[in-house]
Amino acid sequence: MSFKPTDYLPYDFANRRHIGPSPKEMAEMLSTVGAADLDTLIDETVPKGIRQAAPLDFGKPKSERELLHHMRETAAKNKVLTSLIGMGYYGTVTPPAIQRNILENPAWYTAYTPYQPEIAQGRLEALLNYQTMVSDLTGLEIANASLLDEATACAEAMTMAQRIAKSKAKAFFIDENCHPQNISVMKTRAEPLGIEVIVGPADDLDPEAVFGAIFQYPGTYGHLRDFTPEMAALHGAQAVGIVSADIMALTLLKEPGAMGADIAVGSTQRFGVPVGYGGPHAAYMATHEKNARSMPGRIVGVSVDSHGNRAYRLSLQTREQHIRREKATSNVCTAQALLAVMAGFYAVFHGPEGLKAIAQRIHRKTVRLARGLEEKGFKVEPENFFDTFTVDVGPLQEAVMKSAVDEGINLRRVGSTKVGISLDERTRPETLKQVWRAFGITDRDPGVTAEYRMPDPLLRTSDYLTHPIFHMNRAETEMMRYMRRLSDRDLALDRAMIPLGSCTMKLNAAAEMMPISWGEFSLLHPYVPADQALGYREMIDDLSSKLCDITGYDDFSMQPNSGAQGEYAGLLTIAGYHRANGEGHRNVCLIPMSAHGTNPASAHMVGWKVVPVKSADNGDIDLDDFRAKAEKHAAELAGCMITYPSTHGVFEETVTEVCKIVHEHGGQVYIDGANMNAMVGLSRPGDLGGDVSHLNLHKTFCIPHGGGGPGMGPIGVKAHLVPHLPGDPVSGDGAVSAAPFGSPSLLPISWAYCLMMGGEGLTQATRVAILNANYVAKRLEGAYDVLYKGPTGRVAHECILDTRPFATSAHVTVDDIAKRLMDCGFHAPTMSWPVSGTLMIEPTESETKAELDRFCDAMLAIREEIAQIEKGEIDAENNPLKNAPHTMEDLVKEWDRPYSRETGCFPPGAFRVDKYWPPVNRVDNVWGDRNLTCTCPPMADYAEAAE
Amino acid sequence: MSFKPTDYLPYDFANRRHIGPSPKEMAEMLSTVGAADLDTLIDETVPKGIRQAAPLDFGKPKSERELLHHMRETAAKNKVLTSLIGMGYYGTVTPPAIQRNILENPAWYTAYTPYQPEIAQGRLEALLNYQTMVSDLTGLEIANASLLDEATACAEAMTMAQRIAKSKAKAFFIDENCHPQNISVMKTRAEPLGIEVIVGPADDLDPEAVFGAIFQYPGTYGHLRDFTPEMAALHGAQAVGIVSADIMALTLLKEPGAMGADIAVGSTQRFGVPVGYGGPHAAYMATHEKNARSMPGRIVGVSVDSHGNRAYRLSLQTREQHIRREKATSNVCTAQALLAVMAGFYAVFHGPEGLKAIAQRIHRKTVRLARGLEEKGFKVEPENFFDTFTVDVGPLQEAVMKSAVDEGINLRRVGSTKVGISLDERTRPETLKQVWRAFGITDRDPGVTAEYRMPDPLLRTSDYLTHPIFHMNRAETEMMRYMRRLSDRDLALDRAMIPLGSCTMKLNAAAEMMPISWGEFSLLHPYVPADQALGYREMIDDLSSKLCDITGYDDFSMQPNSGAQGEYAGLLTIAGYHRANGEGHRNVCLIPMSAHGTNPASAHMVGWKVVPVKSADNGDIDLDDFRAKAEKHAAELAGCMITYPSTHGVFEETVTEVCKIVHEHGGQVYIDGANMNAMVGLSRPGDLGGDVSHLNLHKTFCIPHGGGGPGMGPIGVKAHLVPHLPGDPVSGDGAVSAAPFGSPSLLPISWAYCLMMGGEGLTQATRVAILNANYVAKRLEGAYDVLYKGPTGRVAHECILDTRPFATSAHVTVDDIAKRLMDCGFHAPTMSWPVSGTLMIEPTESETKAELDRFCDAMLAIREEIAQIEKGEIDAENNPLKNAPHTMEDLVKEWDRPYSRETGCFPPGAFRVDKYWPPVNRVDNVWGDRNLTCTCPPMADYAEAAE
Repeated sequence: MSFKPTDYLPYDFANRRHIGPSPKEMAEMLSTVGAADLDTLIDETVPKGIRQAAPLDFGKPKSERELLHHMRETAAKNKVLTSLIGMGYYGTVTPPAIQRNILENPAWYTAYTPYQPEIAQGRLEALLNYQTMVSDLTGLEIANASLLDEATACAEAMTMAQRIAKSKAKAFFIDENCHPQNISVMKTRAEPLGIEVIVGPADDLDPEAVFGAIFQYPGTYGHLRDFTPEMAALHGAQAVGIVSADIMALTLLKEPGAMGADIAVGSTQRFGVPVGYGGPHAAYMATHEKNARSMPGRIVGVSVDSHGNRAYRLSLQTREQHIRREKATSNVCTAQALLAVMAGFYAVFHGPEGLKAIAQRIHRKTVRLARGLEEKGFKVEPENFFDTFTVDVGPLQEAVMKSAVDEGINLRRVGSTKVGISLDERTRPETLKQVWRAFGITDRDPGVTAEYRMPDPLLRTSDYLTHPIFHMNRAETEMMRYMRRLSDRDLALDRAMIPLGSCTMKLNAAAEMMPISWGEFSLLHPYVPADQALGYREMIDDLSSKLCDITGYDDFSMQPNSGAQGEYAGLLTIAGYHRANGEGHRNVCLIPMSAHGTNPASAHMVGWKVVPVKSADNGDIDLDDFRAKAEKHAAELAGCMITYPSTHGVFEETVTEVCKIVHEHGGQVYIDGANMNAMVGLSRPGDLGGDVSHLNLHKTFCIPHGGGGPGMGPIGVKAHLVPHLPGDPVSGDGAVSAAPFGSPSLLPISWAYCLMMGGEGLTQATRVAILNANYVAKRLEGAYDVLYKGPTGRVAHECILDTRPFATSAHVTVDDIAKRLMDCGFHAPTMSWPVSGTLMIEPTESETKAELDRFCDAMLAIREEIAQIEKGEIDAENNPLKNAPHTMEDLVKEWDRPYSRETGCFPPGAFRVDKYWPPVNRVDNVWGDRNLTCTCPPMADYAEAAE
Repeated sequence: MSFKPTDYLPYDFANRRHIGPSPKEMAEMLSTVGAADLDTLIDETVPKGIRQAAPLDFGKPKSERELLHHMRETAAKNKVLTSLIGMGYYGTVTPPAIQRNILENPAWYTAYTPYQPEIAQGRLEALLNYQTMVSDLTGLEIANASLLDEATACAEAMTMAQRIAKSKAKAFFIDENCHPQNISVMKTRAEPLGIEVIVGPADDLDPEAVFGAIFQYPGTYGHLRDFTPEMAALHGAQAVGIVSADIMALTLLKEPGAMGADIAVGSTQRFGVPVGYGGPHAAYMATHEKNARSMPGRIVGVSVDSHGNRAYRLSLQTREQHIRREKATSNVCTAQALLAVMAGFYAVFHGPEGLKAIAQRIHRKTVRLARGLEEKGFKVEPENFFDTFTVDVGPLQEAVMKSAVDEGINLRRVGSTKVGISLDERTRPETLKQVWRAFGITDRDPGVTAEYRMPDPLLRTSDYLTHPIFHMNRAETEMMRYMRRLSDRDLALDRAMIPLGSCTMKLNAAAEMMPISWGEFSLLHPYVPADQALGYREMIDDLSSKLCDITGYDDFSMQPNSGAQGEYAGLLTIAGYHRANGEGHRNVCLIPMSAHGTNPASAHMVGWKVVPVKSADNGDIDLDDFRAKAEKHAAELAGCMITYPSTHGVFEETVTEVCKIVHEHGGQVYIDGANMNAMVGLSRPGDLGGDVSHLNLHKTFCIPHGGGGPGMGPIGVKAHLVPHLPGDPVSGDGAVSAAPFGSPSLLPISWAYCLMMGGEGLTQATRVAILNANYVAKRLEGAYDVLYKGPTGRVAHECILDTRPFATSAHVTVDDIAKRLMDCGFHAPTMSWPVSGTLMIEPTESETKAELDRFCDAMLAIREEIAQIEKGEIDAENNPLKNAPHTMEDLVKEWDRPYSRETGCFPPGAFRVDKYWPPVNRVDNVWGDRNLTCTCPPMADYAEAAE
């Protein structure tokens, strides 16, 4: 009887596919860290007092195949109708070459934010193309690399206007023709900042009464208006004029810059990014160059490297709160990099002629549709339009809406007597017939005419997308190769570990990613009738319920579409609760010194005062100071914001005490979920005393980073806060994002992760994440000091290496180490955060022992190089660290270094045949900020660089 | 009125996406070649006498979006049931990581056959993994890199047996338990070769009467038998024993090698490759090392490069007919590289424990299913089985079959009273219930038991997949990076032009590729009832009809699954026609000297005698010689095989005369469709006098090369030949492939191409292909001699450069130029074919002017280097050409060359930042053939190489 059933489980996604180390490797690693087994290690690391009572149990985990089957069944519950609802969301055709080579390509979607420019030149170029596109189309000199969505971009523009306006007025004017969700989010944002919002018709604008005003263009109901007079009037009053403009319309219509607008915002969704039931897509913002330093968001700029060659980088990074929190202009600077890249490629793909042709086709179809209605006596409003109009059908509104749905069309309900219609790139002749039939018209089609209905003075006269990149040959062969070349310049998770303490860069499994390409998820408008989105509903409900189990909260809101957005929404929820209790005056927030930079920024945004709390020597919260401050501010205490485990990577045992203190003094506890990857299945913020937390689904729950976005930051709350969660952006109050569920088309990823891991698998992932971090800490012991260990000498899921001593001993900075790691084929760990001069390493559970070893070998070799400098064996200025990263150019040129080419280019860790080459040498940050260029440089520059 | 509608058509796939040069570039190129316009160029190139009468017209071409919509509608007409039909086709789970990173990744699917090993190390390693897997599982020392399908592999094994057997018997024995399509294809193959086929029960084998015998293992109805006695008996008679074995079963059952088999063949489909209604998937063949030189197919082997580093390459290439036609062992050596790569990765992904666990799960479910039936009184046959058995249901056969379909299950109809059932990796507990219900059983499930039903002596006792590559960490992170690393080593169409005259390497558009991943196309068993494949039927009918329009033929057979297979099928069709006319004695085939090497091989395969016809000095067919030979052999003339335009890339005006001569002497005309890319829309082989042609859908019709397969070679015929087309492999006669429609899951690609191009677009593609070739010829004029121009000095869609003079003038070979092109970032053109010492360049219509210029710059710079050698300015042996390709290792090492690093590594054409580096230096072919190693080398070797 030699038939022995194997006990190997081939479809065990959690232990075999998601978790990096094999069982054998784990045994070896445990031996290295000196723990008898994983349970022991976890017991040593995670204090008993904070462990959760019952294990996570989600039933039997699904195999990849079962998951995809289940996803198909769920997807089938969404009904894909043609939505002509408009409101900033339009049908678009994603070019298959872009879908396959960008959206579905791990080289693009697994990349991190391009903070390390030398290994991110590809996506930096793609984002520069995007910025150039926005700048050209809006007619303003400088654009950022995207914002979260149009509504938050409007809100950002409002607060930016307040910063740059010389007017001292406290009010802000909003054109009533703005999309309702834009108005809603601006109102939410304005309230805690004490901005008085005036919503009314553009004609009612009183420039003297406001510091700024925003207008929608075209208006939400289709109106076209030249805002030149309004802009002039605002400037006369030293106020700021903002236009929220449709990017497609700008290919035909006078650009905001030409009207005199100071800021333009909008969505680039309809440039090839599927609607996705609300997101993600990239919002844009553009302004005059003089306002660059006040503009929120990341800005890609052009600089030079240490050899004087052109190199791209993020400009003016000091504005980002992760570097200088006190100067943060906003905490909502998360970009939607992947979606901006797609929109930028859409423009490269089509070029100006293509975009114009597409816009004209949309307009001509809209005219044809209107004429068909008019010829049957329907009154179309407004007279002039681009792609949107309304029809007053009196008491028949409901009948027409329903009849349209029967035809497979969603129209927009406007007031109680009108329906709104917006056409788009996907509108087909058959679509027009369906709409006509919904109006009872079956016998009339005016056909294609040359007629157009845009007022002559509003037609665009200026050129755009004149840069050669938008005139490159648009053959798919050439496009495909361009996308490949750019992605090859970057180092993403598909080639190497990205050991970032500030971000959990774990596996984004192929099976998790596949459903987001399906039409049933990607083609839904966010405001379709609920019965068309039952699949989404089911997924959101189930995912929420699982997240409640994981966190110990009672309900979740999926609306916040970034982590920082989640913090902000969480604090708004607390503020709403206090207000409802008649304690709206509570406005003091305790925040430990070690907190994420986004924390104080979020507190500022809800109008709170930040009271910093000291850290003890071991990095923990200083409990005495905390208690003292809570007591001192008891009357006004709104709450506290803490991170758990701490940003130092330690499970503080005092966390429950901290929460107790806050509650005793009438405050509410916000626990930042950034480090949930150390907690899932082991400990629940809700049990520790948290009232609200946000989760970074793009960290702990496998949504890929996309090269700097998208993200998702849903918030979980205790029952008493549920009534104060963000409301519906159109019909409710307190919305923080444009769409009810944020960026819901990402949710299949996190849901898939939970379903394939199961409760046990999720818990094991946490345990292995902790093992991996402790393994790295142990292997680097002696070479580097690990800051902030727990009382048993263990770290949590990340560890902080102190590199400050090398500054004096060898003149080596943390930057030098980071750049040298590129030579080894690695993205650097998080630099100088939360402690300046340190490196924070978070390996995550997805990295194998082999990869951890490759990383540790590299780090140890670097330490050896530092030692050689310390001992004077190699030059303190001309050495592999200072000259890092080394490029192919270094290798091909004359080599005048005091070390060998081999030493420079192939340090331990670097692959030999599969060597990754940074495309540029070290980028000069100062030069770039001094010589700000944030659009594609002219060709002459390319010629120069080539010489 | 400044609104001017643009005349730009943004969705014009043909002119904007598929065709490389933009209209502006085309104007520049026409000016270079000295043609007033494209019409003029075409008139100068393609003789009037052969132009087709009416333009191609397929109606309005579809946009990418319309195409995908149409594909969805067509796909929906296929019904995806669970097929338990077996017969060599089984449900399998393609790991999503493999689907996304291999099947859907242009870096893998656009690669060419690895004839240039220095730029193909990635897929060569992947194929070596595959060979190692086959070798291990079959227990034989050497495996090839795949064959077309199991049935053709059986036929190849039969002819190989004839070659290697010392027995002089003329008969071949086929176990009646072989799959019917295997028997069918072997019969087809045997007949013209004069092999007598004996089909019977294994017990009836008379070893003395045969030169070889083949047995199916497990048998087609599930029988398990140890063929050790049969193998011994065959060896006793100096005959050859072949086992056609199920690869999954071999993880549990005694391997063919252990039985004494000389050859093992089979399909690797169920290792992660979707059934796809019949294909493509990779068939395997393994044998003893001593038989290596007699084995058909490509064999990847291990060699060294010029620095002594390990390098992979194709071994024993002299066996391939493209090099030495007279030694060709078969013309059906096309591999299924992409599918073999997938199957190999499936084994790496699961490892031996995983594969074993999967096989055990399949077996246990089969036992459970059988027991459930037995407990209700059904008689299951055989007693022992792996995954397949039959049940005799007497007169209820039809009822059970129908009842199963109602349950969503396809069973196999066996005889008139039985049904066959084969379980697989996709079988779920629910599937068992469905089957039971089809038998009327609703109340019984014996549950999971430890019982097994494989005879102890047949259980496998040997290890397999012991090489470390099958024991690498199987975390998806690691797998993804491994796949990326391998693909990065290769140069495919996604990075550079592959200007191969022998293969049309055009764009494989993303939109064309997408549908092949859809379950409605990928999950169908080839022998499902016709009403479940109506979508396929519609596609095949429409594509056939379009191909008829394109070629001027009356009907098409999609069965041949490679180009060579198409030739063979075409000649069989002609032979069948002669036989039907009572002229079965006609067996002489005229073939011009310049013909494709596959031509004479195909003629041999149908038992014909080849009579070569001379070429005139200009490369054309020598018409006088042709006429003389036709007359001489008039009585036995079967036909002729010609290629049009000629393999020299010229439109011979005499083609119609050639056809006439053949017809006058009772022969039939075979026109090779390899060069159809120069004809579509301009000229039709059927009009020229052709009776039959094959089309390479993987050349002209956009099926990607997959790194050396898949391909498709359907044949078109005139009406009189239609009755003689290949029959159904199971129910008909004359089948050439295992499945009725060859590799039908590829057909959406070619269909999509036709639908998006339209007739006009297809014609324009041909015209631009001719323009591109003439542009290259013009730019290289003066530097290289272009052989074989037409009378007006034009070439067709390819041009041949003469490099022979450099051998004497500079000691530079065509190989040196090919390797130097790698330094420039290019795959070499076709070398030494059709004329030794030449390069044949076919740029295709998909390459832009910019890429053509990059290539021409590289070629001109190489010519300049040759000139420097000629002038004695650089050393004749130590120069960039002889040392090419240059690797990163060259750059990092001491540089002792008489030219600079820059010159060596960055010749004109090479990208700077985006430089492609060949991972190895020039590969030593002789060493590799002398030291044959065709499985993964042991780790000790790796350690050595690392030193």
